[in-house]
Amino acid sequence: MEMFFDPKSIVVIGASNAPFNLGATICTMLKDYLQYTGDVYALNLKGEAVNGYPGYSSILDIPKTPDLAVIIVAARNVPGIIKDCAVKGIKRIIIETAGFSEGGEDGKAMQQEIDNIARVNGIRIMGPNCLGTLSTRKKFCCFYGVNPSLVEMSQIFEVPGNISYIIQSGGVAVLVMESLYYDVVGVNKVVSIGNKCDVDEADLIDYFQKDETEVIGIYLENVANGRKLMDAAKKSRKPILIYKVGKTPEGAMAAMSHTAGMANNDSIFDSACKQAGIIRLQSIDELHSLPKIFTEMPLLKGKRIAMFTNSGAFGSIAADLLVEAGLQMVHLSSQTQEKLKKAGKAFNIKNPVDIGPAPPQTYLDIFEILLAADEVDGLLPLLSVWQPFVIDTLLELMKICKRYDKPAAIYTANAIAKSIAIRAKHRIPIFETSEQAVRALSVSHAYYESLLKRNFISAPASSAASGLENNIGAWAEAAS
Amino acid sequence: MEMFFDPKSIVVIGASNAPFNLGATICTMLKDYLQYTGDVYALNLKGEAVNGYPGYSSILDIPKTPDLAVIIVAARNVPGIIKDCAVKGIKRIIIETAGFSEGGEDGKAMQQEIDNIARVNGIRIMGPNCLGTLSTRKKFCCFYGVNPSLVEMSQIFEVPGNISYIIQSGGVAVLVMESLYYDVVGVNKVVSIGNKCDVDEADLIDYFQKDETEVIGIYLENVANGRKLMDAAKKSRKPILIYKVGKTPEGAMAAMSHTAGMANNDSIFDSACKQAGIIRLQSIDELHSLPKIFTEMPLLKGKRIAMFTNSGAFGSIAADLLVEAGLQMVHLSSQTQEKLKKAGKAFNIKNPVDIGPAPPQTYLDIFEILLAADEVDGLLPLLSVWQPFVIDTLLELMKICKRYDKPAAIYTANAIAKSIAIRAKHRIPIFETSEQAVRALSVSHAYYESLLKRNFISAPASSAASGLENNIGAWAEAAS
Repeated sequence: MEMFFDPKSIVVIGASNAPFNLGATICTMLKDYLQYTGDVYALNLKGEAVNGYPGYSSILDIPKTPDLAVIIVAARNVPGIIKDCAVKGIKRIIIETAGFSEGGEDGKAMQQEIDNIARVNGIRIMGPNCLGTLSTRKKFCCFYGVNPSLVEMSQIFEVPGNISYIIQSGGVAVLVMESLYYDVVGVNKVVSIGNKCDVDEADLIDYFQKDETEVIGIYLENVANGRKLMDAAKKSRKPILIYKVGKTPEGAMAAMSHTAGMANNDSIFDSACKQAGIIRLQSIDELHSLPKIFTEMPLLKGKRIAMFTNSGAFGSIAADLLVEAGLQMVHLSSQTQEKLKKAGKAFNIKNPVDIGPAPPQTYLDIFEILLAADEVDGLLPLLSVWQPFVIDTLLELMKICKRYDKPAAIYTANAIAKSIAIRAKHRIPIFETSEQAVRALSVSHAYYESLLKRNFISAPASSAASGLENNIGAWAEAAS
Repeated sequence: MEMFFDPKSIVVIGASNAPFNLGATICTMLKDYLQYTGDVYALNLKGEAVNGYPGYSSILDIPKTPDLAVIIVAARNVPGIIKDCAVKGIKRIIIETAGFSEGGEDGKAMQQEIDNIARVNGIRIMGPNCLGTLSTRKKFCCFYGVNPSLVEMSQIFEVPGNISYIIQSGGVAVLVMESLYYDVVGVNKVVSIGNKCDVDEADLIDYFQKDETEVIGIYLENVANGRKLMDAAKKSRKPILIYKVGKTPEGAMAAMSHTAGMANNDSIFDSACKQAGIIRLQSIDELHSLPKIFTEMPLLKGKRIAMFTNSGAFGSIAADLLVEAGLQMVHLSSQTQEKLKKAGKAFNIKNPVDIGPAPPQTYLDIFEILLAADEVDGLLPLLSVWQPFVIDTLLELMKICKRYDKPAAIYTANAIAKSIAIRAKHRIPIFETSEQAVRALSVSHAYYESLLKRNFISAPASSAASGLENNIGAWAEAAS
C-alpha cells in the first residue's frame, strides 16, 4: 500500500500540453508546489514532454518501470492502458477517470475487464472515479485539478499532522483539507477511493494502523463489503469516524449516480458501527472538527461533566445539549463547591459554574478545582473571549488537562469567524459551537468505551467505582 | 416603548469614577463610540461628573426629568432609587442590577416592592438583571461593560439593519451581534430583558410591528405569561424565531439560577409555538444565521426543491438532509431535463443536478432553467468556490431569485472561515453548512404556511394545484 503514497517514480497517463488538460495539473503540482523528488513520466498521443517531465506515446517505451501509474484519459481507453501497464510490470494503478460502474452498462463491462487483468497480473487498483492519494510527509499528491488559488490546499503540506482520511468523493476531500487549514490538527494522508473496484476502506484502515495516523476519518457513499470493513474496524487501535450518506432513499439514490454504490440499509449499518467501535458522524463538518478532541486532549473516561462559563446563558444552553447527548451534569461535591467559593467571583458555584468579570487567576483556579475533583470526568468551558487574557488561560488549561488526564472541550462564546481566528493563531482546540463541543465529549467517551469493550484497555476498577460513589453522594447531598 | 430605545435624556444611576465602575462604561460608550446627542446625567454618592457628563448625588437635583433612568447599583439600593425616580416623574426605568428573583428570598421581596412602586406611579420597568436596550438607527445603547476591544460591537451601528432581538441574556445578545457583524443582515434593535418583571417579550413583539423590523429573533430562558406571548405572536406580520432553553430538567434548572424563570413544560411550549406561527430554533446560532433567508430571499411557497452542485457528494449529503427536514427532492420534468442537457457540462441532469468543470454561463443557465421550472419551488445550490467567478454567478443568482419570486438557500462547499469571508465581502446570503441551508428553506416554508393558516395571505389556488400535478407527472415519469 505504501507505494500508492510514496512512489519513487510515477507515470501520468493522459498528461499533455492541450488546454485544460487535467493530467498536466498533476505534473504542475508535483513539480511546482511539492518539489517531488521522484521520477515523473508523461504519457500522451504525441509523446510530448509536460512541464519539463519527459513524454512518451507508449508505456512500453518508458526507460524504467514506474512504481505507480496514474490514469486520467477517456474511460474507453482505460482497459487497453491497463493491459500495457501489466506488460510493463506496473503493480500499482490509480484510475482517476470517471464513467465506469456509475455510468451504465458499458461502463460496468469495462470495469469487469479491468478487474480481470488486474487480478491475473497481481496489480492493485485504486478508483476508478477518484482523485487518488496524498501524503503530506512524503510531499506527494496525484489529485488532478488542484487549483493554485486554493491556497489552503498547498499549505497543508507545510505542517504535516496525524489525521488520515479515506474519502469516497474528491469534493469532500478538498473541503476537509481546506477546513483543516483553519484548525489545529493537520493531515497525514488523504485517499479518494471513488468506486473502489479493488482497494477499499478496509484495506486502508489496516494500512493506517502502521503509520503516523492517530485518527481515521472516512466519508462513504456506499459499503461494498460490510464484513471486511467491520473486521478491519474491530482491530483498529485508532479512532475511526465515518460519515455515510444514504440515510434516506433520496440520498442513497443521489449517491448511486455519483459513485455507483448500492443503497445500504442504514439502520443495519448503524448497529454494525456500534459493534465495531466505529463513531458515526452526524454531519460532514464533523470529519474535520472532531478529530482534535482525540489528538489534543486525553480521552473522556466517564460521563460526568462540569461546565464553566463567564456568561450564564451558555451554561443553560449546554446543559440541555449535554443531557440530550447522554452525558451527565455532575453534581459538584460540597468540598468542590467550598473551593469554588474561596476562588471568588462566582455567581454560581454549582454546575454550571458561572462567573462575572474576573481576573485571569480566577479562571485558572476554577479550571484546576474542577479538573482535580474526583467527581468530574471532563470539562466543558463555555467562555466568551471578552478580554485577550482569556486566550492565555485556555493555553494553560490545555496543560492542566494533560496533568489530570481529563479532557476539556473548549467553546469560545464568540462569533464563529472570531473563534476560528483565535484557534488558528493560538493553536487552541476550540470548537465552533456548543453543540460541537458537547459532541466532541460524547465521541471521546464512546471511543473510550469501545476500547474497554474490545479489551484493548481495562477499566481502573477502583476509580470507576469510587467515581460512582462520589456522584451518588453528591446527588444525595444536592437533593437534601 | 419608544422612549426605551430613543430617549432624549438619560440618567445613569451608579456611574462614577471608581475603578471598574460599570455605569461609567455606559457613559463612555454613549459619548465616545456613539456620539449620543441627548442629555446624559451621572448619579453617584459624590455627585461627581463622569466622562464629562454632569454628576449629581440625588435624582431630585437633576435640572430636568430624564426620559429614561438606567440603574446599575447594588440590589439593596434599588427600591429607594425607584422611589426617587417616581418622585422626579421618571416613567421609564431599566434595572441592570442582578440579585433579585434569581437571588433568593430577599431578592424576591425587593422585587415585590419595586413592582408596587412602579404600578402605582405608572412607571414601565425593564429588567432587572439585564443589559437594556440598543438601537442602531438612533445610535443609542445602554449596555454596560461593552469593551472597546469588541470591535464588532461598535461597528454594527454603522450599517443599521432590519433584525430586532429580544434576548433574555446579555451574553447571548453580544454573541448574536458579534456574529451578525460577519453576516449580510444588520441589527435594528436589541433588547436584553433579564428577569422581565414588567416589560416582556410580548410587549416588544407588539412594538416591533410598527418599526423597521423585518424579522424578530428571541432567546428565552422562561415564559412567564404564555398566553400573552402567543397572542402577540399570532398577530405578528413579521417572522418570529425563538430559541428557548430548558428542554431538559438540567437545562431548566441551570436557567433558573440565571434569570429566575420557572421551568416550563417544553412540549406544551412547542405545540403552542406551532399554533401561533412561531419558528422554534434548534441552536443558538440559528438566531443570527437564519434571518437572512427572510430578508434577502422570497418566501418558499412549496416544498419542491431542486439542488445544483459542482461536486457530486454534496448533492447526496443534502438529499438526506432535505428529506429529513420534510422537504421534497423535486423530480425534474422531461422538459427541464432537456433544457439542462442543452446547457451542457452536466454529469447528472436529474436532481441533484451535478456539473463538472464549467464556465460561468453554464452556472447562470442552470440557475435560470431550474428557477423557471414550474415544478421547482426553491433552489439549494451547493457550490464549491473553486474559481472566483462562482462568486459572480451567486450575485447574479440573487437577482434571478427575485425575478422568479423563489428562494435559493446558498451553501458554498468551502471551509467555513472562507465562506464567511466571501459572505462578508460580497454581501451574498451564504449559509455556513448544508444543514443550515436546508434549515433555512424549511423555516421559510413554515413561515409561509403560518401566514396562510392565519389568513394573512391567500394561496394562489391554481398554481398550487398545477404544481402538484406537475410533480405527480414527474414522479410517474421517473418511475416508468
